[in-house]
This record gives sequence, C-alpha cells and structure tokens, in this order.
Amino acid sequence: MSMVTSYDPRTGADAGSAAASTDAEVYDLVAQAGSAAAAVAAAPPLERRRWLRALADALEAHLEELVALADLETGLGPVRLSAEVARTADQLRFYGDVTVEGSFLGASLETDASGTIRLARVNQPVGLVATFGASNFPFVFGMLGNDTGSALAAGCPVVVKAHDAHVAVGVRTAEIAQEALAAAGAPEGAFGHVVGFDAGVSLVRCPGTRAVGFTGSQQGGLSLWRLANEREVVIPVYAEMGTVNPVVVTPAGAADIASVARGFVGAFTQGSGQYCTKPGLLFAPRSAAALAEVTRALEQVGPAVMLTRRIAESLRDGTSRLLSAGATTVLVRPGSGTGWSGDVTLLTAPVESIRAGSRLLDECFGPVAIVVEYDDVAEVVTALGELQGALAASVFAGGSTDPDAAPLVSRLAGMVGRVCVNAWTPGVACTWAQHHGGPWPATSDPRATSMGAAALDRWVRPVAYQDVPAAWLPPAVQPGNPWKIVRRVDGVLVTGGTA
Amino acid sequence: MSMVTSYDPRTGADAGSAAASTDAEVYDLVAQAGSAAAAVAAAPPLERRRWLRALADALEAHLEELVALADLETGLGPVRLSAEVARTADQLRFYGDVTVEGSFLGASLETDASGTIRLARVNQPVGLVATFGASNFPFVFGMLGNDTGSALAAGCPVVVKAHDAHVAVGVRTAEIAQEALAAAGAPEGAFGHVVGFDAGVSLVRCPGTRAVGFTGSQQGGLSLWRLANEREVVIPVYAEMGTVNPVVVTPAGAADIASVARGFVGAFTQGSGQYCTKPGLLFAPRSAAALAEVTRALEQVGPAVMLTRRIAESLRDGTSRLLSAGATTVLVRPGSGTGWSGDVTLLTAPVESIRAGSRLLDECFGPVAIVVEYDDVAEVVTALGELQGALAASVFAGGSTDPDAAPLVSRLAGMVGRVCVNAWTPGVACTWAQHHGGPWPATSDPRATSMGAAALDRWVRPVAYQDVPAAWLPPAVQPGNPWKIVRRVDGVLVTGGTA
Repeated sequence: MSMVTSYDPRTGADAGSAAASTDAEVYDLVAQAGSAAAAVAAAPPLERRRWLRALADALEAHLEELVALADLETGLGPVRLSAEVARTADQLRFYGDVTVEGSFLGASLETDASGTIRLARVNQPVGLVATFGASNFPFVFGMLGNDTGSALAAGCPVVVKAHDAHVAVGVRTAEIAQEALAAAGAPEGAFGHVVGFDAGVSLVRCPGTRAVGFTGSQQGGLSLWRLANEREVVIPVYAEMGTVNPVVVTPAGAADIASVARGFVGAFTQGSGQYCTKPGLLFAPRSAAALAEVTRALEQVGPAVMLTRRIAESLRDGTSRLLSAGATTVLVRPGSGTGWSGDVTLLTAPVESIRAGSRLLDECFGPVAIVVEYDDVAEVVTALGELQGALAASVFAGGSTDPDAAPLVSRLAGMVGRVCVNAWTPGVACTWAQHHGGPWPATSDPRATSMGAAALDRWVRPVAYQDVPAAWLPPAVQPGNPWKIVRRVDGVLVTGGTA
Repeated sequence: MSMVTSYDPRTGADAGSAAASTDAEVYDLVAQAGSAAAAVAAAPPLERRRWLRALADALEAHLEELVALADLETGLGPVRLSAEVARTADQLRFYGDVTVEGSFLGASLETDASGTIRLARVNQPVGLVATFGASNFPFVFGMLGNDTGSALAAGCPVVVKAHDAHVAVGVRTAEIAQEALAAAGAPEGAFGHVVGFDAGVSLVRCPGTRAVGFTGSQQGGLSLWRLANEREVVIPVYAEMGTVNPVVVTPAGAADIASVARGFVGAFTQGSGQYCTKPGLLFAPRSAAALAEVTRALEQVGPAVMLTRRIAESLRDGTSRLLSAGATTVLVRPGSGTGWSGDVTLLTAPVESIRAGSRLLDECFGPVAIVVEYDDVAEVVTALGELQGALAASVFAGGSTDPDAAPLVSRLAGMVGRVCVNAWTPGVACTWAQHHGGPWPATSDPRATSMGAAALDRWVRPVAYQDVPAAWLPPAVQPGNPWKIVRRVDGVLVTGGTA
C-alpha cells in the first residue's frame, strides 16, 4: 500500500500519514457521488443550509484536535490556525445563507396573458465537483474550504483531494465531515475524499466528475486544466493560482512611508509569505526613501518556516532566479536551517527592468519581495503595462484628493480581480460583494471567484423549460415560488420571495 | 489581393466577393478597438442603448437591400430573411434594455456603520470581443447578431469575422453598422470587421483580443477553442456548436401521431434542416406507426438547397456515415441536382443501436433525421443515457397527467440546455428567461448562452474595490446609484434603481 506522509516543517520529522487512494477507490467514490447527485440537487435550500451548518458546528466542536494536528503539519501556529477554523465555519454558514437567498439560481419566468408559464430558466447543479485544497490554508481552502462549501451549497456532491502537506488533518477533517453530514441527514455520497497525487489525476479524468475547483500553484492549476481539456467530455477547471500582486505608493501616499513600509513587511512576510495575495512588487517614489524604511521594518521580522520541503526549495530557486533576472539583494534574514526553514529576502530592481517576459515577474511563493523605486508616476504606469493579470493590487494614496491615485485604481482594475486603497491585499472576507479571482494566469476563468457569494456560480448551469407544465418544473421556478427565492418574472426582478 | 467569393446556392454561380483582410489590417483593427475599449466601457447604459437602437433602425432602413443580397448568397428566401432582419433589430433593442436594467453588472456594495462603502463588486467589460457569425443565420447570428449585440451592450468593442458564405451581405451590413454607430456618437473602433479564414485566425491570436464568440460547427468551434488555449494569455471562447437534439414521443403523446409527424417533418426540414436546434432523433412508440406517419408527411416537402457547397457535401457524407453506422433509409426526396441542392432523407434505426460512440449519433447538418421506434419507455431512458450533451430536446406528452413525461423532462434537463414540451426545438426567443446553450460538446462552456439577457454575462468579469474612496469607484457602484441599476447593498438585492 502506497502511503502519503506529511512532515513537521519546524523539524522535518514525520508528522502524519495516510494510505493513497487506489483507482478502484476513486471510481467507487465517484460512482457513489453520482448516485447521490440527484438527491443533493433536489434538497430544498433550507435543508442544504442545515448540512452546511452541521459542518460548521462540527469543525468548531473539534477545534482543538484539528488545530493541534494542523499545527504539527504546517507550523502555522495555533493562533492563526484557530482563527482559520473559525473563519471556515463562518464561510460554511455564509454559503448556506447564499443557498437560501437563492439568487444564484438565476430563476426567471415568462408568462402569457393567461398567467401560464411559457418559459422558465433556472440554474441546476452540474453534478460531482472535485476540489483540490491549497497547501497554505489547511482549513479556509482545505477539505471543507471555499470550493467544497460553495459546491455543496450549490447542490453538488463533492470529492476532495486531501493536500499531501497536511494529509492527517485533511483525513481527520473528512471523517468529521462525514459524521456531521450523516447526522444531518445528507445523502450518502454527498461528500468524499481521496488521498495522493495519482488519485487526484484519476478524479479529474473520471467521466462522472463534472467540474473541478483548485487553489494552489500555477503549475498545479494548469496541469489539471490541461487534463480536463483532454477529456472526451471537457469539464471546467476553476483554478485560482498565484501571481505577483503589485502595490503602488503614490508621491502623496508616501507621506507616512514608515507606516507603509511596516505594513508592507507585515503583508509579505505574514504566514512566511505563503499567500496567493502576497504583495510581491512595491513601487515607491525614490524621494521617499522607501527602500530604507522597508529595510528597517524588516529587521523586526523573525525567521520563516515554509510549509513543505518543496516550497522551501522553490523559495531558494525562485530567489536565485530573481537575482539572475536583474534584482539586487537589499537584506536577507536567514532561516534557522532546521526543518523547512527559509530566508526572508528583500530585493530591489530598477523600474526599467520591469518588462513583460522578464523572470523578475515570476511569482516567488514565500517571504520575498521586490521594491522598485521610481522618479515619476508615468514610469509606474508603463511598468504596470508589462505585468501579467493578478489576483489583487493596492494603491497607497494621500487621501481622496491625490491626483495620481484614481487613474492608478482604474488602470489596476483592468489587470486584477481586486483593488485596495490604503489597505493590504492579504485577508479576503467571504461576503456577498467579494471577488477573489482575476485575469489569466491569476485564474483559469476570469469570471470565477473562489470566495464570496458568487463562488456558487461555478457549480451550476442554466436550463430553460419551454411550455413545460407547471407541475413538472423544478421547485425554483414553480408557481407560488415554493423555495421563496429571488426570481425574475416577465423581465422584472422580484425580491423577498414573493414572486 | 486574395478574395473571398460567395455563391448563389440555387445555381452555384458567383454571388458576391470581398477582399480578404491582411494581417496588418487585422492588427490595425484590433489596435483601434483597443483604443476604443475604455470609452465603450465608460459609456453610460442609456448611451449604449442609443447605439444599439441606432443599429436596429439602420438594419430596418436597409431591409430590402440586405434581404436581396442575403437571398442571393443563401437561397433562404425573402420571407424568412425579412423576418430575420426584423428579429435581429428586436434583439439589438432588447440587449439595449438589458444594459439599462443593469443587473448583468452584478453590482454589490458593502458599507460600514458610518455608511461608507468598504467593498464594492462590479462586473467590468473584458475589452475587445471577436465574434464569428454562423452560416445559417446571416442576420440573427451575423455581423450584428446575438454575439455582437450582447458584447456591445456589455460595453465591449467588437470585431466580427464576416462569414464566407454570405460575405457580401456581411460587408454591407458592417458598412451600415459603421455609419449608424458614427452617427449615434459611438467611439471610433467600437465596431470593425474582417474577411477571410486567415484573418479570423489572426484575430483570435491577437493579444488585444479578450474573448471570442462563435456559432457554427463543432469542428470550427473547437478549432478556435484550441487556438485560444494555445495563446500566452488564454482567453475564453464561447462556442455554440451543433449536436443531435433528441425528441421523445411518449405512448400517451402519440395519440395524435399524425400531427406530431407533420410537426417533426416541418422542424427537421425547415431552412433545409440547417439549424443547430434541428430535432435529429425522434423516439416514438412502435405501436403508433410514427414512421409511416412521418413518411407520409415528408411527401409534402419540396427539394432542399444547402447554404454552401461544403455543407451540401457534408450532408451527403454525413448521410452515408449514418447508413454505414446501421441506419436504414425510409425515404429520400432527392435534390434538384443544380447548385448546392441536397437530398431530404428519413432514416430509421433500432433502439439498441443508440450507443455512445456510435457514428449514428454524429450530427448531420441538413434535412436528415432518424426515427427510432421503441416498445417500452425504459428503452428510451437507456438510449438517452448514451447521447452527448445537446442544445435542446422535446417531449411530446399526453397532457399533464402523462405518467412518462415528467421523468423524461427531468432526465433531458440533465443533458441539454432547453427542454420543450409539445413544442419543437427550432425557434429561440431572445428574452430574459432564455437559455441557448448546453453541456459539452453542444457548447464549449455549459454556463454560457448565446442568446437572451444572460448573453451579456460572457463579456464581463468582476472586480472588487476594497476601501476605495467613493469618487474613484465606477459609476455602477457609486453612492446615489447614478446609473439607476439593480444593486445588492449589504447582501440585499435592491431593485428599481433606488439603491
């Protein structure tokens, strides 16, 4: 039996293990999920919300156990991990509320003069969703993370691939989830998990799998995307991947450069820089001596521990690549040398070196960032035109009269999924108005978000019913609005479940 | 100079021609469209609606000229073509109204206790959209068809590739469109067109192109999809392609089989069967003698003329392939033999021969259909499980108490984009509740529709604004709701432009 082993990043010692799923096990799970799909889809919104709340409650009930397991496997520390479990429970409850509100169903009716429904459009769940959690968020983007929560909320069974880096906490979370769902009356097969790289590949290849959610590296996301595009029946892969998130400090925004510098150091070293929203590239006016301020702030930062041996190696390689591409080292805070320790590195580069195709613009996952000093905002605007699409960007501005800021916000909005002003990009609230996505290659589908209410939209597709007798329509578009959801009737949106 | 020539399908004589666009011309157009993108996106909804209404008016003003040109190149006849122009004008006006209503923008605000907007999400136009019209609808899916209309409505400049089969009417429509848009004050570069296969390929490859809309064959759609997936920055291709649309007549639905048979013949021979919604496979109870009734109805049908030489050849090849795959000829109504004439062919096949992978299930574009007789509805349910995803399906049922119908509707809803009861699949109204799409390989994106209000959704992507001062937000999410659109405020949908 092939095993997947996880390690304590602080020491490199074995931390946990689980048996890799065989192909036969994957097929069985997919078949079970396929059998459950109709029942999961047909469950009324209030029932699906009950399942999601049961999952949230179960996570909270097992908080200490899960945090201890995850801390051993990730080294992220109990404070951060406890907060993450709480946030994951909140997300699950939020997705339950989104289901009940129901506008994700896009229900739309058209009636004739006699009031008979002639055309009804409603989104229906796509069926089995395969989700692939991230290394860096064992809970928020883990077994019961945003992809799993939003897919269950949308009415889809889910099979999750446990991440190798924290396979023990993954498997234990899955057990807790199974138990909670069974107790809440969810259909058997509504949730399953697999372990191991090969099982993940088989899961994407299985004809029964209808969509894929992934959070992680560009390499991993694009591999799954290619795999799905090679299927006989191609399925969508919603991959949220890493990119270099730019920050621009305007001349007026540099008034309190010391505070910006402290914020930047906090943002790029937080969680050892292992965030997809890490600000990797800071443009600051040369006159503000930002580089000196960032250097000073960095002297307060402790050593970094990376999540896996591979990430620690990639950090070393990536930092070397940035240096070969023309960056200069400003300061290195060396790692401890034990376990998967990593260096915290501050680099600088001339603004002219920011050119499309330069390896200076390769994402380097971990606590490394580049400060680029500029003399004129026009140089920044030119440089921004060379960057790839990204998840997020920030502008540090001098208040709402700053003449440079509004054009930069507008420019960045054309390149990223989220623009912040005087705020850092890490920390993404899971709410109605959130968007956590961005243009290629930040994601494989620029319309998709991996977080927030619109996360459900990925797991449904519309069906129109023409001249179908009312009794045969799905409840979401039946007369009397039995699910009490937002609907459009003869072109007019009707809120409050009264349509 | 390379020329594209179109032909009169009734005779095969030359009908029109246009110079193929050079690569330099394509790049220029894309550059112009790129320069126009910001202005097109920033135009308030009422202004964009004015452009769309100007296009609609211009089409109507040139009705006779356009119909005469199109009739020469398509042989579809002035009655059908006049109706198509009128429908295209209606669509353009409809998309204008969808813009003004504004819920496609998905505007969502979150405020803090002081009423300050902390997070705002809004869809923004993706930029230049390349559209590829269809052979079979020179207007409804032509230069100013659903893809172009919905993209302009969504705030994107458009470059259309004129279809070779009706290049003269395409180029003339483009001239009329240019003139109308200029008179209505649309930015220069908001609309352009190219001619020729190579120009279409260049258009998809141009970095400035941000999304592609296509209606046509599976081969054409998948080629563009592959091309877009090979770009450095991959872009979405929304290809609406052909499939075999199934029809099931239940035992009770066969009570008036003569009427169903007449309807079926009308539906599969209409427009010489050149509809993506053509019902290609009819399941009927053997006891109803449907085959005999269809044969009788077919005797009233005149000869078919295909749109192009290639379609006429494909029809011959496709029909032969169906015969090789196990179908039997019931009746052939031979074409005239002049121009691009084609045979109208009725085939039958045993229900057991409907198996996944069988070439019996290949779409054959044109007036050919297969009637499958069954003894038991269970046989139909099994056969449906072997079919690919499709655009549409029909059930002919014996009224709302028919015990077989509701399960069939539900089964088909899992396989297609639109299910009709006692109605034929051709004829798709462009309305709020419409969905014209379907699972792979009916479309390249099962969430997308090429028609109806949701057609705009393909041409936008969300951006979240975090802590951005109100004055720097796009109008759609500014305080006071200057665009008077449907918005979500703190999680609650507010209609009527009052938010």
